[in-house]
Amino acid sequence: MVKKGKALQSRMGWSTADTITVQERDFTNDLLGKIDLGAMAFLEIQGRMPSDKEARVFNALLVTLVEHGMTPQAMTSRLVYLASPEALQAAVAAGLCGVGSVFAGGSEQIAKVLQDGLRDAAPDADLPAIARRIVDEHVGRKQPIPGIGHPLHKPIDPRTPVLFSIAEQNGFRGRYIALLEAICAEAETRLNRPLPINATGAIGAILCELGFPWRICRGIAVISRAVGLVGHLAEEMRNPLAREIWERAEKEVFDNRPQ
Amino acid sequence: MVKKGKALQSRMGWSTADTITVQERDFTNDLLGKIDLGAMAFLEIQGRMPSDKEARVFNALLVTLVEHGMTPQAMTSRLVYLASPEALQAAVAAGLCGVGSVFAGGSEQIAKVLQDGLRDAAPDADLPAIARRIVDEHVGRKQPIPGIGHPLHKPIDPRTPVLFSIAEQNGFRGRYIALLEAICAEAETRLNRPLPINATGAIGAILCELGFPWRICRGIAVISRAVGLVGHLAEEMRNPLAREIWERAEKEVFDNRPQ
Amino acid sequence: MVKKGKALQSRMGWSTADTITVQERDFTNDLLGKIDLGAMAFLEIQGRMPSDKEARVFNALLVTLVEHGMTPQAMTSRLVYLASPEALQAAVAAGLCGVGSVFAGGSEQIAKVLQDGLRDAAPDADLPAIARRIVDEHVGRKQPIPGIGHPLHKPIDPRTPVLFSIAEQNGFRGRYIALLEAICAEAETRLNRPLPINATGAIGAILCELGFPWRICRGIAVISRAVGLVGHLAEEMRNPLAREIWERAEKEVFDNRPQ
Amino acid sequence: MVKKGKALQSRMGWSTADTITVQERDFTNDLLGKIDLGAMAFLEIQGRMPSDKEARVFNALLVTLVEHGMTPQAMTSRLVYLASPEALQAAVAAGLCGVGSVFAGGSEQIAKVLQDGLRDAAPDADLPAIARRIVDEHVGRKQPIPGIGHPLHKPIDPRTPVLFSIAEQNGFRGRYIALLEAICAEAETRLNRPLPINATGAIGAILCELGFPWRICRGIAVISRAVGLVGHLAEEMRNPLAREIWERAEKEVFDNRPQ
Repeated sequence: MVKKGKALQSRMGWSTADTITVQERDFTNDLLGKIDLGAMAFLEIQGRMPSDKEARVFNALLVTLVEHGMTPQAMTSRLVYLASPEALQAAVAAGLCGVGSVFAGGSEQIAKVLQDGLRDAAPDADLPAIARRIVDEHVGRKQPIPGIGHPLHKPIDPRTPVLFSIAEQNGFRGRYIALLEAICAEAETRLNRPLPINATGAIGAILCELGFPWRICRGIAVISRAVGLVGHLAEEMRNPLAREIWERAEKEVFDNRPQ
Repeated sequence: MVKKGKALQSRMGWSTADTITVQERDFTNDLLGKIDLGAMAFLEIQGRMPSDKEARVFNALLVTLVEHGMTPQAMTSRLVYLASPEALQAAVAAGLCGVGSVFAGGSEQIAKVLQDGLRDAAPDADLPAIARRIVDEHVGRKQPIPGIGHPLHKPIDPRTPVLFSIAEQNGFRGRYIALLEAICAEAETRLNRPLPINATGAIGAILCELGFPWRICRGIAVISRAVGLVGHLAEEMRNPLAREIWERAEKEVFDNRPQ
Repeated sequence: MVKKGKALQSRMGWSTADTITVQERDFTNDLLGKIDLGAMAFLEIQGRMPSDKEARVFNALLVTLVEHGMTPQAMTSRLVYLASPEALQAAVAAGLCGVGSVFAGGSEQIAKVLQDGLRDAAPDADLPAIARRIVDEHVGRKQPIPGIGHPLHKPIDPRTPVLFSIAEQNGFRGRYIALLEAICAEAETRLNRPLPINATGAIGAILCELGFPWRICRGIAVISRAVGLVGHLAEEMRNPLAREIWERAEKEVFDNRPQ
Repeated sequence: MVKKGKALQSRMGWSTADTITVQERDFTNDLLGKIDLGAMAFLEIQGRMPSDKEARVFNALLVTLVEHGMTPQAMTSRLVYLASPEALQAAVAAGLCGVGSVFAGGSEQIAKVLQDGLRDAAPDADLPAIARRIVDEHVGRKQPIPGIGHPLHKPIDPRTPVLFSIAEQNGFRGRYIALLEAICAEAETRLNRPLPINATGAIGAILCELGFPWRICRGIAVISRAVGLVGHLAEEMRNPLAREIWERAEKEVFDNRPQ
């Protein structure tokens, strides 16, 4: 006797002997060879085809998060590959486990702030006033404001103006970006130091412009980082670093052991 | 005293206050907004920019592996999201752990067979003879030949001719595809049943044509599947299925418990 | 030139040709065969050997979290094993990704509440008053109070009295348990319904009595669940269920597809 | 209409309002407080309670694999925790992804060799002859023989005699251990160098004596390593190393960048 409270329904995809349906489209005839990976990601997440402009902007966001050099996540994937070369998928999975709150996962936080901020806002809402309230709340709770400031990129994050320019050229420079700029201005005044909009903040704001709910935004970073981690593993195969990184650490712990 | 057997060197990327370098390119000025995610993946893995034709073919391969409906991996990501909604990255990672030998990871196997087969082959090598040897070896060890046959798509996998056609139009229909076709013909004769080239086989052969080493091929599936799993989580947020799937299984196990 | 801000030091372990040191003990002669896995877990986490009483209580906590039947995590590990039987470690890892806020990870939350509640409390602190404040805060924020109430186990969670009795017999029934009982009493009065201390709550409180910082408490659940998930995989090898669970879901999604 | 090819049945566990059943036992009254974590692991995997002797031997095996110092897996868990401190379970999961063929996962391989070797062997089978055949096969395929030799522990692995002694004292020194000793002797003669039985080999052989199928043996290492990785995260909370390890690598890659 199977309990069946709710029928399982999904629009993602299914197959028959001679057809493959993805998002209610004929995959073989209508998508394959006619859509790039970024546009396919938009289709999968939003459940509808992107316009050319949407696909262009979304690809730019995805490309930005692919490669940030020798990050903790890249080191993780390399170390797991050293130990389990037969399971490359597990090496990527391990690195992705680190796309969290501290590194790479932050566009979720700024998108939530912006979407909460504009949820019930009238079309002519006073953005500086909303920004002031957001900054007040974070300062009051001694929380950092997501999306602004960067430990290395000063005085500005060089990716931000390019991302905003791509958004603008394609018709996606709207109220979410404006609110983030107002937050940035208010925070710099209140805290009296440069707090430029960083790439994560810009991406979070543009994802809002593209209509992505904040809860899925970390997933965008996960897609991009999956690309980057496979890249690191390809380099690790040509030029292994993980063993050296591991052996140095093990040796140093041994040399520094309590006597 | 740090043991230092080997200097750590990587071409993947690094940053200064005002520049971001990826693959020895100025990311902000030369890549951002000028490259799609599929081309970026090619650059990351191969360490060089793809031509337009390469980017087109590679995007087609990536797009093919994104969405296969309600797979074990998609169910996995949904179940982990049910239990840990605060860590979306872990839900994707869990699903990716299943991109293994049985589902989705198989292009690695066919690429290895093809690359081993043509490793020392002269330009005018006898492909049917090589195919015969490969089929012999697999039949002798009672191993399935990777890349041919499909439990559902019969008599042909509808994606295969489209993928080969895209490869051909862009100048990538070469000896690896020819060898796979020879393997398919030989296997059908020897085993006396239809064993069409499946999409995984076609992808493995085209990855060989594009110059990807077989060891990284599973990584291509991992990238695609990361896109698909984020798509499933986006649908799960709109229309949750995981709790129903779980509760039915738990209830049935209870109802069928030994007395 | 290696930047070296801080020497890497760790007490966890190291080896020479003829010795193995774990937690500054001679592993081969002083630990192997003389300590059970639960006591070893205490040593690893706390950095000191447990007393017999501590080992007894800690083993009871660990054992409680091992097996909760056909959970989302168990289904996850089985589905990943179906897809990647060659990487059993990835199947367990995938299941563990789901030891999050909703299932199995909750002892962290109650331990934080209790440790925050008693951080600066005098020895004769008024526990009911502290409990009142904690309940007020949660009710005010409309947050559920962790560690009390259970969807199935009513009117009491049968594990709780046994766990508290084991703690008491071994000298670990102290102020954290008393505070949790006061929270339970206050919440039942305020919310006017039975909200018994559940097993997760009891475990969180006893972990506090044993001196575990709240941040590591989820790790205790992870250890236990690793045991349980390997158990599920052992059963899956003897009696496979994952394929059936997957095929039913895939079939139902197909049958319910939009027309 | 649900397809239902096979009823879902599991002996692992289920609950009612006032009972919790695990492995067809009353968990609260018959297991909780009466069984340690190692014995519970045996019950979960084998589906029956261990004898005291079995529990003693199995705990010794589990304890051996917990802590091997600053391994790639330990570094992995620390790096993921640095990036995602809110998801400790994902940090452990990432480290476990590395319990593969190269590190820590090897008892599976030796158990398979031993179980294959004795599958159809008569009670008085000639173990040296079987050992000779096994060594021949590996040497012929130029494969290392699992379970013997160690890069650091020479001339012997100090854990091996202790593990065999614990097995012997409890009545588990049987044919699998004898076959491994014969393999070791044969290999040392054939290859003319010391190839002592390492701890992984000893554990694999003793798991065979305890009746564990080779396919589950990697799971034993996974359980132990989960304990060790939670230990490393507890130390990382007290004494963070991951940021230093990461920053050094990132800095060195920057300093060594191609010009």
